[in-house]
Amino acid sequence: MTARCAPAEITAYLHRHIPVSAHLGATVRRCDRDGVVLAAPLAANINHRSTVFGGSASAVAILAGWTWLHFALRDAGRHCRVVIQRNSMEYDAPIDGDFTAECAGMPAAGWDKFLETLRRHRRARTELTAVLKLKDATVARFDGEYVAVLLEAGAADSA
Amino acid sequence: MTARCAPAEITAYLHRHIPVSAHLGATVRRCDRDGVVLAAPLAANINHRSTVFGGSASAVAILAGWTWLHFALRDAGRHCRVVIQRNSMEYDAPIDGDFTAECAGMPAAGWDKFLETLRRHRRARTELTAVLKLKDATVARFDGEYVAVLLEAGAADSA
Repeated sequence: MTARCAPAEITAYLHRHIPVSAHLGATVRRCDRDGVVLAAPLAANINHRSTVFGGSASAVAILAGWTWLHFALRDAGRHCRVVIQRNSMEYDAPIDGDFTAECAGMPAAGWDKFLETLRRHRRARTELTAVLKLKDATVARFDGEYVAVLLEAGAADSA
Repeated sequence: MTARCAPAEITAYLHRHIPVSAHLGATVRRCDRDGVVLAAPLAANINHRSTVFGGSASAVAILAGWTWLHFALRDAGRHCRVVIQRNSMEYDAPIDGDFTAECAGMPAAGWDKFLETLRRHRRARTELTAVLKLKDATVARFDGEYVAVLLEAGAADSA
């Protein structure tokens, strides 16, 4: 993606437009064509057992997929509303430290098809997966179905 | 459940032990044997399109199931760690206002069996469902699998 998509700027965008993301302490480590990595601290997301609250883990994973798709579309010059339609999470282990959510985005062929569907039907749907990691270990797995709806020219997103 | 489980006290418990729940603006409207109702405002959970961020919706649903099970166990005199192992969400419609998450808990027969499994194996697993409502309309559906692990006598939860 372009220089517009510097991690600090995307973090600021998320915190401004989705205020809960700031409370989750979510920051963007990387966001490019090949995926996104969000980081979040244990402290902001702690539960009564000193591990990460499942709801926080889920929210950061959902945000990772959304962030990748939103900025990939923006980078491709498409002004869209991106919404989640369905998701599932598997929690494999307690998360007792700072963690990351890594979404690998879509393969190039799938992305081209997605953009073509969007051009033809003004909406397109894709599944995105993410893994949550504690240090290098996978501690949770996410998959979600997102829909992008093309906005009218001139009705570009507020960002 | 007993007087210990007054909604305001449970809200305070959640905000103290799971600080993100305060940032979500989650408050307990009702929590008894027949289920739990959490309420959350749009304002705290807004996204870039002026509807509820999917991650917030998911987190409040996860919290609803957790809250019911945690306090039902406490009310039954069982000191447990309750963790989520898996969940899924279906987002049926944008949530453009304050919303609730309603979890109906478990039927009496299932609850008795759950407690018996917990007694025998020191752990037990159950599926809980919740619906998110905007006014009276269902806008999202959740199901999650929770596991309760009996804590040693004397190692009671910190609350």
